[in-house]
Amino acid sequence: MIDYQKIIDGIHVTCSQASERGKVAAYIPELAKVDAQKFGIFLVDHNKKGYSSGDWSERFSIQSISKVLSLTKAINIIGPAIWERINVEPSGDPFNHLSLLEAENGIPRNPLINPGAIVVADILVTHLKNPKEDFLAFVRELVDDQSIDFDKSVAQSEKTTGYRNYATANLLKSYGNLENDVETVLDFYFHQCSIAMNCEQLTQAFYIFMNRGKCQRDNTFLTLTQVKRINALMLTCGFYDEAGEFAFEVGLPGKSGVGGGITALLPNQFCVATWSPGLNKKGNSKLGMEALERLTTEAEQSIF
Amino acid sequence: MIDYQKIIDGIHVTCSQASERGKVAAYIPELAKVDAQKFGIFLVDHNKKGYSSGDWSERFSIQSISKVLSLTKAINIIGPAIWERINVEPSGDPFNHLSLLEAENGIPRNPLINPGAIVVADILVTHLKNPKEDFLAFVRELVDDQSIDFDKSVAQSEKTTGYRNYATANLLKSYGNLENDVETVLDFYFHQCSIAMNCEQLTQAFYIFMNRGKCQRDNTFLTLTQVKRINALMLTCGFYDEAGEFAFEVGLPGKSGVGGGITALLPNQFCVATWSPGLNKKGNSKLGMEALERLTTEAEQSIF
Amino acid sequence: MIDYQKIIDGIHVTCSQASERGKVAAYIPELAKVDAQKFGIFLVDHNKKGYSSGDWSERFSIQSISKVLSLTKAINIIGPAIWERINVEPSGDPFNHLSLLEAENGIPRNPLINPGAIVVADILVTHLKNPKEDFLAFVRELVDDQSIDFDKSVAQSEKTTGYRNYATANLLKSYGNLENDVETVLDFYFHQCSIAMNCEQLTQAFYIFMNRGKCQRDNTFLTLTQVKRINALMLTCGFYDEAGEFAFEVGLPGKSGVGGGITALLPNQFCVATWSPGLNKKGNSKLGMEALERLTTEAEQSIF
Amino acid sequence: MIDYQKIIDGIHVTCSQASERGKVAAYIPELAKVDAQKFGIFLVDHNKKGYSSGDWSERFSIQSISKVLSLTKAINIIGPAIWERINVEPSGDPFNHLSLLEAENGIPRNPLINPGAIVVADILVTHLKNPKEDFLAFVRELVDDQSIDFDKSVAQSEKTTGYRNYATANLLKSYGNLENDVETVLDFYFHQCSIAMNCEQLTQAFYIFMNRGKCQRDNTFLTLTQVKRINALMLTCGFYDEAGEFAFEVGLPGKSGVGGGITALLPNQFCVATWSPGLNKKGNSKLGMEALERLTTEAEQSIF
Repeated sequence: MIDYQKIIDGIHVTCSQASERGKVAAYIPELAKVDAQKFGIFLVDHNKKGYSSGDWSERFSIQSISKVLSLTKAINIIGPAIWERINVEPSGDPFNHLSLLEAENGIPRNPLINPGAIVVADILVTHLKNPKEDFLAFVRELVDDQSIDFDKSVAQSEKTTGYRNYATANLLKSYGNLENDVETVLDFYFHQCSIAMNCEQLTQAFYIFMNRGKCQRDNTFLTLTQVKRINALMLTCGFYDEAGEFAFEVGLPGKSGVGGGITALLPNQFCVATWSPGLNKKGNSKLGMEALERLTTEAEQSIF
Repeated sequence: MIDYQKIIDGIHVTCSQASERGKVAAYIPELAKVDAQKFGIFLVDHNKKGYSSGDWSERFSIQSISKVLSLTKAINIIGPAIWERINVEPSGDPFNHLSLLEAENGIPRNPLINPGAIVVADILVTHLKNPKEDFLAFVRELVDDQSIDFDKSVAQSEKTTGYRNYATANLLKSYGNLENDVETVLDFYFHQCSIAMNCEQLTQAFYIFMNRGKCQRDNTFLTLTQVKRINALMLTCGFYDEAGEFAFEVGLPGKSGVGGGITALLPNQFCVATWSPGLNKKGNSKLGMEALERLTTEAEQSIF
Repeated sequence: MIDYQKIIDGIHVTCSQASERGKVAAYIPELAKVDAQKFGIFLVDHNKKGYSSGDWSERFSIQSISKVLSLTKAINIIGPAIWERINVEPSGDPFNHLSLLEAENGIPRNPLINPGAIVVADILVTHLKNPKEDFLAFVRELVDDQSIDFDKSVAQSEKTTGYRNYATANLLKSYGNLENDVETVLDFYFHQCSIAMNCEQLTQAFYIFMNRGKCQRDNTFLTLTQVKRINALMLTCGFYDEAGEFAFEVGLPGKSGVGGGITALLPNQFCVATWSPGLNKKGNSKLGMEALERLTTEAEQSIF
Repeated sequence: MIDYQKIIDGIHVTCSQASERGKVAAYIPELAKVDAQKFGIFLVDHNKKGYSSGDWSERFSIQSISKVLSLTKAINIIGPAIWERINVEPSGDPFNHLSLLEAENGIPRNPLINPGAIVVADILVTHLKNPKEDFLAFVRELVDDQSIDFDKSVAQSEKTTGYRNYATANLLKSYGNLENDVETVLDFYFHQCSIAMNCEQLTQAFYIFMNRGKCQRDNTFLTLTQVKRINALMLTCGFYDEAGEFAFEVGLPGKSGVGGGITALLPNQFCVATWSPGLNKKGNSKLGMEALERLTTEAEQSIF
């Protein structure tokens, strides 16, 4: 029997004392205001028992973590047809997300990098009646919490500084891989990324990926094959150009966001979320990665 | 209780009747001679019980599958120091293995693509007293079979046509990431790739990766952390630019070779090897990938 | 004494009978309407004597040829400071204009590819009181013809389909190499490209580059050093990824546009313009290039 | 009447006092021994009158300048068929000469970068009876000087350290764009680059490019069209990724070598050679480029 609480408490002590915490994301003005000293962790096991420490109950901007949830919704709606518009391979380099898109004629390398997530957003804009409201309702249902909401000041902040996302969406449009107009798709995308959640809520949202498609209330959202595929994508593509490193050091499917959150999971065993706003050079939470490496090492548990 | 024999027999029937078998590798003259109709599969479970079908007992050139074994030996010898000379990220594109090496100043993206495997070969040439003999002895020990050997005609065939590998080794040398001379390293590398094994022997060689570092005779070759890392590398980098697809469809760490072999494993559960010489466009065995996709789907088992 | 009229007449006869004429640009709907059979040529020598044949008096959309004129105006205004924001090297590939911009951190490779011309447009928007009107006045002054004007339907056509230009401008903005907002700069840029001129007018506009900076009425627009530099840019960068080919076959500084026009010049000798709407695979007028190759071969004149 | 001697003397005075001289090439041990303080210049006008200053009579390794001479010989032998194996476009980046070759399937971008020059060497090895001797005889004939020779210690020095050239030749071989074996072609190539000449001899060798194909003794080596094309290649490709800068600042066709030499010419007017071993970051002679920029500015002469 693994004593998750003891491991988590140990991690919390170490992380609280860490002097090197990385740098808080500055490119979105609203995110730059967050306190770099925050650290939270929450783990839920397959018996729905929770273990927590630190600032686990404080909400933060989930940012790119939302890409897994929008992908899930898009797969719910159009199924495997999604793979006609997006590939499933890791992307390699960070700096080349537009280069790669250009080299591959407008087919994003995978759904967890920005170009892919923008195509997913386009699919949701096409198929949802009230895209933003309906997607928010889906996330609230996953977590079973109606208080989850967009952070409109963050969404607005991205809209006025997100030139690279505008460049990406226009490039997708030039290749005919965007059905709706650029403004509408990016408005949806910026809102999706602005959703605020805490560590516990994130583990509830990702519970389906560790529990064979079923949420904590046993409702089924995905088939077993769909779960396998989304977990595979998280493992190979969930951490930008550090996906290999995360698989190598941590060994869990997961997804990071520039808000400092990471959610990861071990199928049939546990789902965990960490939050520490300081990012390493690759854009992933520095302490979050260290915490998860320690968790899998001390618990002697990983998918490998 | 999963009936592996039944699943394997079903796979064998389907594969025997397949009309589309891909193309046998032609770039190495010796490999082009192999019969495209061959198909074999062997699975060993965690109780060391074997299940087999088809041409599982016929030996073939393991080619790139050997990269996992040379990596294992190199980690045995120099430990984590290996990562100063090789990275651990997936490479993305196939066509650019030299481009990528040039862009990244002579540090191969990972040890399972050719440039990385050549650096691993260089490490073994430096540290082994009789490199070829000692490495062969290591593989024989892993499999517990003294009859395993190099196929010298295959090794010679690669030596006279392997211009791209010569280009790679010279480029590594120009960046100072090759200690020994090009000829010596490539002689070792071509021999390593020429090792002939059958499906059963491959599952014995890879048993350590599913059995927490211990071979079938319970000798320990790797620590748990080392196993985790090598499995992570197989999953993210084991199938060239189709690694994402293999993770997505099959969901197991594994490694393919242009000889038509694939070895894959589920930690603590089973290790499996397939052989079908026809390759798909990405250079992986066509029927082998289909067989493994079916195995994990029907057994409802994968790391995800 | 070279008989330019005889050479031009010979070229006209051949070009009128050409069966292979390339393809008219289709990506801008308004341009696709042009008659592919049109062919015009006009040459003015250093004594201001004109030689002409075919549809030389018919106006067409000058498109990228305008980039040389906007560059001239920008150099007039801010001088060498322009080179802090744009480089002067040939770009090599066509397909990678965004890739290259990304690889080089938002500094366009040269002012004659789209990213560079958009930065030039940004400079003019910053420094001209009424950018569109003032730039048009400059072109009218160069040509000494008040009837020259924008083609607003072409400008509008580009605005609604120019996603790649929007992508480029947003990418420039993300690198901090665009001072004004994207819409304003592209509105100027699309208007600049939409200017309609005939072959004679183009030779008048480019007369300054063959006449040491002075126009036909002897007004000075550029210093000798500025002329040298702009001519060098036309030679190395004026024909997308076919610049080497044009230098090799024709041997004159020049600039092409997707409207089918080409203007070229031999310093101190002549300035010439051709028009044939069909483009080759690299996006340059097929018959125009052939005509100019023949002109320099028969006249035995080139910069080399 | 331009007073070339006065201009050259002024340049010499300035260059003698220069404190910033760039760095002498260190990658070839033999070249690293050269005295960085050397500076020589020699100009011959269309009346065969010579003007000189500094160390113009001292021989140095011409290195890449030899590529223009080997190209000339290859065009002499096989004519335009050469362009089936080499392209004529500028290459853009320096760092990517292998990447580019890979991206373009083994067809070098132009004959003045290493991959292209190695293909030219291969052509000469195929067609010359005694390749090294015959090529040397050709250069001696051009210059009318039997004392010109290979520097065997330089050739040997390159052979033992030229890993990148070995990588390039093997990559060409893998694409089927090398007829002879790698060792033979590179032995020729390293010898060709090792030829030692002084500034005066270089102007004699390049006299054909300024004199419509005829050498100083009026023997014809090239047609007018061939001269035009080789000059075009020198202008667009003669200075690695600084070709645009050289055209922009100097405005003459020319070629540099890492030995610190530059040869340039103005058709029908003059041919000039400079020597200063210190290189700028792009690998071109720092003082040589400054000297030539000043020459064309003070003489008010350039092809533009």
